[in-house]
Amino acid sequence: MFTNTLYFDIPHTPKIEEIWNKISAEYNSSVIGYYNLPIDGEKLLLDIGVWKTGVRNIQNIVVVGVGGSSLGTKAVYSMLFHEKKTDTPNLHFLENIDPIAIKKTLQDIKLDESLFLLVSKSGTTLDTISIAKIIMVYFNIFPGDKQFGKYFAAVTDNGSALNKFANEYGLKSFFIPKNVGGRFSVLSAAGIVPLTLCGVDTVKLLEGAAACRDDFFARKSDTLIKKALACTLKSGQNINVLFSYSDIFRDFNAWFVQLWAESLGKKKGEERVGFTPVGLIGAIDQHSFLQLIIDGPKDKSVTFIRVENMAYDMPVPDISLKYIEKINLKKGISAASLLNEQAIATMKSVINEGVITDEIVLSKADAYHAGYLIYYFELLTSLCGLILGINAYNQPGVEIGKKILLDKLGK
Amino acid sequence: MFTNTLYFDIPHTPKIEEIWNKISAEYNSSVIGYYNLPIDGEKLLLDIGVWKTGVRNIQNIVVVGVGGSSLGTKAVYSMLFHEKKTDTPNLHFLENIDPIAIKKTLQDIKLDESLFLLVSKSGTTLDTISIAKIIMVYFNIFPGDKQFGKYFAAVTDNGSALNKFANEYGLKSFFIPKNVGGRFSVLSAAGIVPLTLCGVDTVKLLEGAAACRDDFFARKSDTLIKKALACTLKSGQNINVLFSYSDIFRDFNAWFVQLWAESLGKKKGEERVGFTPVGLIGAIDQHSFLQLIIDGPKDKSVTFIRVENMAYDMPVPDISLKYIEKINLKKGISAASLLNEQAIATMKSVINEGVITDEIVLSKADAYHAGYLIYYFELLTSLCGLILGINAYNQPGVEIGKKILLDKLGK
Repeated sequence: MFTNTLYFDIPHTPKIEEIWNKISAEYNSSVIGYYNLPIDGEKLLLDIGVWKTGVRNIQNIVVVGVGGSSLGTKAVYSMLFHEKKTDTPNLHFLENIDPIAIKKTLQDIKLDESLFLLVSKSGTTLDTISIAKIIMVYFNIFPGDKQFGKYFAAVTDNGSALNKFANEYGLKSFFIPKNVGGRFSVLSAAGIVPLTLCGVDTVKLLEGAAACRDDFFARKSDTLIKKALACTLKSGQNINVLFSYSDIFRDFNAWFVQLWAESLGKKKGEERVGFTPVGLIGAIDQHSFLQLIIDGPKDKSVTFIRVENMAYDMPVPDISLKYIEKINLKKGISAASLLNEQAIATMKSVINEGVITDEIVLSKADAYHAGYLIYYFELLTSLCGLILGINAYNQPGVEIGKKILLDKLGK
Repeated sequence: MFTNTLYFDIPHTPKIEEIWNKISAEYNSSVIGYYNLPIDGEKLLLDIGVWKTGVRNIQNIVVVGVGGSSLGTKAVYSMLFHEKKTDTPNLHFLENIDPIAIKKTLQDIKLDESLFLLVSKSGTTLDTISIAKIIMVYFNIFPGDKQFGKYFAAVTDNGSALNKFANEYGLKSFFIPKNVGGRFSVLSAAGIVPLTLCGVDTVKLLEGAAACRDDFFARKSDTLIKKALACTLKSGQNINVLFSYSDIFRDFNAWFVQLWAESLGKKKGEERVGFTPVGLIGAIDQHSFLQLIIDGPKDKSVTFIRVENMAYDMPVPDISLKYIEKINLKKGISAASLLNEQAIATMKSVINEGVITDEIVLSKADAYHAGYLIYYFELLTSLCGLILGINAYNQPGVEIGKKILLDKLGK
């Protein structure tokens, strides 16, 4: 069960019909590809399955990729890490051209036990390809070597430079559909390949996403549209906080931050639009950012996320510590219930201050609900883009820096 | 060397003298304790040294604490992790009453090799004390047991409930000075005890902080005051981005977020003040949040942080990959130089868009510079508090949620 409760009121206006028509049209047009990833998945899973039977016993899957090529995979892997079986490969990430980080990751793995997945939609991401070269030297394995295709595979656009390279040197390529942007690509090969190889139940993940799509497009409720309207009100909040209760959501928050910032931060003629995403972890950040939400400027909306039934729990022991008795809890409180009750109490105090608030409750943190949650935020992002009248699927602003860099350092 | 360059102009006004006088007065008043922590450190280090000789061989220091009791320690530990010697204890954190996170940490450590540091300024932090109770049951060790004081120690206010508890059951207590708030406490026992026990060069850390204090109060430059003025301009940016280039700064960013949000997010009569802190990691977040900075609303300032000479480096191999030649780099580029050049190129593109920007360059990421950096941001926070006319050292907004919770779950 996935529930989203809005603690604010958006009256039913003709605008809601208009938005509904727009997103239905976009959905039916096939111009934007992510909508259909839950269906496309079947063929992909088959492809992975066939390929897997041919590969050796792998202990480490190393995703070499950044941004949309890593954040979604990381989000799902971390959210479901508590379900991981010990005999499945571990997932590692090489995202940053940071020598300390690269060394830390590479020194812990052996080439023979590892598969490096070069994930780059364009196939020419500077950081990714530079890290790939470092890996080649580090393990002394190069294109043209007989074993090269055993250790490397590519996830990229069909026909990209990386795909051509892969074909030339006998690497398996998995394809991200052309009409799926990087930050909407977690349910494509970009996420499904590494996650499947690491034993994540990607069938259930895609099922959850499909359920979200079906629920939404069957128009079971207008909650998401109302939420998108609240997010985009001009008088409203330009900072959107995700307050996720449990450490398992840390990487999900980072995925949301990219999705929200990069999709909605755009120039629209002379106007500049966009909202600042902030990811918080409860209960920890009650001791950090919360003070600003409660007493600071009214420029934020807050979405609380919590898990009703955590996969693992333990009682808070009914022990009384001398002198510290004043924070003794009632008998029978568990850690998970204390975490949930902290979410609820904090949410009440935030609502009391008149902050625009809503709450997402997952009955479980499993693959199905992870898929539902991801698709839900992708839909929300699309809705906001349509309401704002911008293209949520490009990122024109980040090209200048790349040009400045290549002008200086390129050959 | 620590340099901070402002890429914007704040003319010299009488206001600068006024702020200067205010912070000098606060510094000399001894009401706010963190200013003097670099000096207080000496006695503390002696105390730790004497105590250490009496404790057994410890593999794991486990900080049980949240917010100001963990974030600063984490920030320094992560920033200096690349210097860590293998024979020093590992540092772990139990911050969240999240059963999955608690289990994950506890299952990897053995009681006999561990010391649990209960860090709570008030001594009655619900999460911290609840986790302490879980540890007691998990390892079957309780107050009154002969060995109890061997496995637990306290870092708290002198005379707090936790301190009384510690005295009753033979636990060593280290004290956070009364006039030092949690989020300004990293250079007090809260941070210095665990960091010293884990082999961090806390002498150098405090020396770096002292150097920052001396440089500032000798008024070698007005850079910090000008920066504080830029941050607090009413017409200005209400979102302050820290764009830190290297994974080693991830936890430092989180420390900054607490410091900034909790110190400056305040009610001032009817008015609500405060700025939203955002922590980014370069080059990774060039593929995420950067688009919003470049094309989105002009409501942000950005501080770039980078390390001129990283402790470890590796060349980006001068290999040409067929079909991907267009991103080949000049010969001799290293990973660290590519990271730095990305910071510089991105900064240029941000400045080009007219965003208020400044740059902090550390010549090295060592204990001295970590101390300098921390003290620098503490001073900046104090300056902003003084300019805004608020109390940067309390957190009145977060009490209501705690009350709602204890009303429901308390005994």
